[in-house]
Amino acid sequence: MMIPNIYNFGAGPGCLPAEILSQIVKDIPDWYDGMSVMEVSHRLPVFVELTQEIERDFRQLLSIPEDFALLFMHGGARSQFAAVPLNLLHGIQNTNYLLTGHWSELAFEEAKKYCHPHIVASSKAENYTQIPDPSTWVVNENAAYIHYTDNETIHGVEFPSSSLITNRIGKQWLVSDMTSNLLTKPIDFSPFGLIYASTQKNLGIAGLTVVIVRKSLLGKAHALTPSVLNYSICEQHQSMYNTPAVFCWYVLGLVLKWAIAQGGISTLSALCQEKSQRIYNVIDANDFYICPVVKAYRSRVNIPFRLQRRELESLFLHQANELGLKQLQGHKTVGACRASLYNAMPMKGVDALVEFMQEFAKMHA
Amino acid sequence: MMIPNIYNFGAGPGCLPAEILSQIVKDIPDWYDGMSVMEVSHRLPVFVELTQEIERDFRQLLSIPEDFALLFMHGGARSQFAAVPLNLLHGIQNTNYLLTGHWSELAFEEAKKYCHPHIVASSKAENYTQIPDPSTWVVNENAAYIHYTDNETIHGVEFPSSSLITNRIGKQWLVSDMTSNLLTKPIDFSPFGLIYASTQKNLGIAGLTVVIVRKSLLGKAHALTPSVLNYSICEQHQSMYNTPAVFCWYVLGLVLKWAIAQGGISTLSALCQEKSQRIYNVIDANDFYICPVVKAYRSRVNIPFRLQRRELESLFLHQANELGLKQLQGHKTVGACRASLYNAMPMKGVDALVEFMQEFAKMHA
Repeated sequence: MMIPNIYNFGAGPGCLPAEILSQIVKDIPDWYDGMSVMEVSHRLPVFVELTQEIERDFRQLLSIPEDFALLFMHGGARSQFAAVPLNLLHGIQNTNYLLTGHWSELAFEEAKKYCHPHIVASSKAENYTQIPDPSTWVVNENAAYIHYTDNETIHGVEFPSSSLITNRIGKQWLVSDMTSNLLTKPIDFSPFGLIYASTQKNLGIAGLTVVIVRKSLLGKAHALTPSVLNYSICEQHQSMYNTPAVFCWYVLGLVLKWAIAQGGISTLSALCQEKSQRIYNVIDANDFYICPVVKAYRSRVNIPFRLQRRELESLFLHQANELGLKQLQGHKTVGACRASLYNAMPMKGVDALVEFMQEFAKMHA
Repeated sequence: MMIPNIYNFGAGPGCLPAEILSQIVKDIPDWYDGMSVMEVSHRLPVFVELTQEIERDFRQLLSIPEDFALLFMHGGARSQFAAVPLNLLHGIQNTNYLLTGHWSELAFEEAKKYCHPHIVASSKAENYTQIPDPSTWVVNENAAYIHYTDNETIHGVEFPSSSLITNRIGKQWLVSDMTSNLLTKPIDFSPFGLIYASTQKNLGIAGLTVVIVRKSLLGKAHALTPSVLNYSICEQHQSMYNTPAVFCWYVLGLVLKWAIAQGGISTLSALCQEKSQRIYNVIDANDFYICPVVKAYRSRVNIPFRLQRRELESLFLHQANELGLKQLQGHKTVGACRASLYNAMPMKGVDALVEFMQEFAKMHA
């Protein structure tokens, strides 16, 4: 059976490159010694070597410094909402949280169990359509870290640069949820203590979470930290403290090889910029489509938009779906439409969406 | 490419039925609307319906009573070592743990973070080759629950029946790790508060953990319980509090359909008994092979054994591997050999191993 010619704009689990789907199909009958990769022990040398290669590829792609550990954990990014304070408080009771959307708000709520998270600033009153003006931020200077969500998958708000924060805040480590935009841009790791991302957006399929953490921060977890959420234990066991999600880890490996073959982060970053710009150009061309996010903070990977004539939205989504433009419905909490443009979305898919949006606008002008 | 004709005796991740591997390959290009199951949103009705069907199949196979919730969680069984006390203590500081092998010991160690786990009995002094004589058990009568590991995957010790415990202990709920033997026998749920199992043995692939928990025990988790480990939150969100391991859940669904098609639990239970008996018969036929476990407590799913002449073990493993009898090496902590006979292991595979063991013994007698 052929891989069908559709374009999947889902926000996650997101689309995989067609080449990777083909590779998975090819590998299943005999990945190693007559077994599929789903059936081999994670302790087999061939699998251990694969994980080492994945770490090398990851470090190469993002130029991750040696003083950072790279962990592959269970539970989705949401598990990190608890793991971050549990591992990084180090006895300090204060933390800083920047609220710029659904996910940073939930990270803040979970942190309340373990510490006194201070709200540096929030754009909730503006329905999370922007990043609050840095001149209005109030920072707790005696806190363990400052947490922010680099890209808000639902609200479509993205930090144009971490310097927006570092210019405002002195010595505290940044902790960032990059679930939806890791591998879409180069990262200067110097201000970061920790970066985390679950894998179902740009890194493969659901079931794994990547944690990039400064080694000097390890070893001082809260006494009640469940072992599976303890960064030090995970590092000491090369992310195999218990049976890892073997298949998800393998798919991540395929994605990293694919990303390198595309030209690495500089190419992916330029493509990401170009793909999103083409969609925003259609949205901004007239007032048929509306993106609620302030231009300077618009996401390059998740574009929420609605139609000026809201009664046309279900027709828009229906016709898009018929044409093979899939999963464009918005998140249940905000509704309307959302186009997610992860690395696996080809330019042809973006152009197909652009063409449809233009045609639809013309038809219903 | 054909599914090769090998037999995988790995302890987990374990083998999958060949029919399921074929189905996965068939489904990948177009599971729904042109997308693979790895790429669809877990919120899509078609996926939600799949999870509901999985729950129905699971309940039907094991006759799970309605007053039990069925949860699909992250993190492997090891995450439950923390989640069980975090969710079930209900303010009581005492718990009971029966130590019969590697995994029950680790569950006990993790519980120390959250409560005062009392050792009811331990067979550690006997290298975990038996279940301690119930007449010697010392039970803390004021405890939240009694935890035991129904089958020890590494040491090959299995409880012949939960009545071994209930005859000895009054009103406390049983909590059991059934990671390696769930779906291999009928279960009388009446003495149980909770049963858990990760999926990489009899339930599919690594990346998911099934929790079957008495609903009356929900809603009183410890205040510091990470949300992803909170049973009530998981139940309230139909196991979709955050993005679940979509592909692992789908494979579980295929395994349950397959199990039903095999004839359900009564058939699988009889097969499990017969398969293991054939291997034990070879082991007990003479003193060439040795299984260290006391006969009454020998596991039907994980058979650890060694050769009387230990210098022949690497040759044994090498020749077995050459013949397509894969992953027979024992766990790193005990060494030697182990044959795991999960539901997916066909009788033909067992017979091939029996034949090889007999031939090898004859050759080196």
